Amino acid sequence: MATKSEFKLDEAIAILTRTPATLDGLLRGLPELWVRRNEGRSKDGSDSWSAFDIVGHLIVGERTDWMRRAQIILEHGEGRAFDPFDRFAQAKESQGKSLEQLLDEFARLRKENLAALEKLNLQPNDLARRGTHPELGVVTLSQLLATWAVHDLTHLHQLSRVMAHQYRDAVGPWSAYLGVLKCGGHSA
Amino acid sequence: MATKSEFKLDEAIAILTRTPATLDGLLRGLPELWVRRNEGRSKDGSDSWSAFDIVGHLIVGERTDWMRRAQIILEHGEGRAFDPFDRFAQAKESQGKSLEQLLDEFARLRKENLAALEKLNLQPNDLARRGTHPELGVVTLSQLLATWAVHDLTHLHQLSRVMAHQYRDAVGPWSAYLGVLKCGGHSA
Repeated sequence: MATKSEFKLDEAIAILTRTPATLDGLLRGLPELWVRRNEGRSKDGSDSWSAFDIVGHLIVGERTDWMRRAQIILEHGEGRAFDPFDRFAQAKESQGKSLEQLLDEFARLRKENLAALEKLNLQPNDLARRGTHPELGVVTLSQLLATWAVHDLTHLHQLSRVMAHQYRDAVGPWSAYLGVLKCGGHSA
Repeated sequence: MATKSEFKLDEAIAILTRTPATLDGLLRGLPELWVRRNEGRSKDGSDSWSAFDIVGHLIVGERTDWMRRAQIILEHGEGRAFDPFDRFAQAKESQGKSLEQLLDEFARLRKENLAALEKLNLQPNDLARRGTHPELGVVTLSQLLATWAVHDLTHLHQLSRVMAHQYRDAVGPWSAYLGVLKCGGHSA
């Protein structure tokens, strides 16, 4: 039951399609406590991310990263490295917006990107095409698309942890049983 | 921004109310890969949990644990310890059911439990009432209710990890950047 699988495009799309509704179900209309609080300062002294920041980061990925990188692989192969992903662009881009606006924007961009992906009509030999990541070196289109899906999951993992952190004291002695409260994150 | 808060009942209810839609958005209709696969054997040699197992576990909690314990606190105080939570009951109870049936059952039970909770019309002094956990000792009603919400979040944290694990190989070198793939779980 635990064998890891080959990449299948429709399985990745199944995750990517569902993330907007998952985030909507989890976050829309929540009290500020759950949306705006973070986990305090990171090891490097900067603020860690709140749920609001995380949704903003997912929007930046939709706008600048995933499909743009797929296009670079298909048009240029390994010859042109991807532009680096700006992990902090959301601070500026989300300013003044409500969480509800961000959720709407994420859902719209994801839908557009999945329509664009479908239009590419990728075949198995396309999935093996190679590109150049600015830090990781050679990667394939299938690895990029798998990463897009797991990137959703890693931020869902982070979201549940950031939210649980707000009740670290409120649960009292039960903290001993709640794995999410023992997770300190896994940033590089 | 990172100050941990006092427990407020409506904030816990805000999480508890949303979990069925969150799980529905994430899981309903997903390919088997994401639903039935687990993370392999646990340290103790038993099978780890799949998404299907996790939803089954949440159902058992609704049926036997959270509101039952609240009632024990209100009726018996510290005088009668809670019954232990059977962490493995779902293996039998979920047998032969589809994930979609489990999601429906969880949503129905959660709705009933939140209606029962509302009916209790709890006041601040009720939230401070004390009960006895069979292993943790004295706990309060507010700690129980906070734990109910964080228990949802800890299993969302686990779900995202179990699902991401299936693409551990598919993401190739990007695994270096995906925190969820570095999380080994935090069971006691």
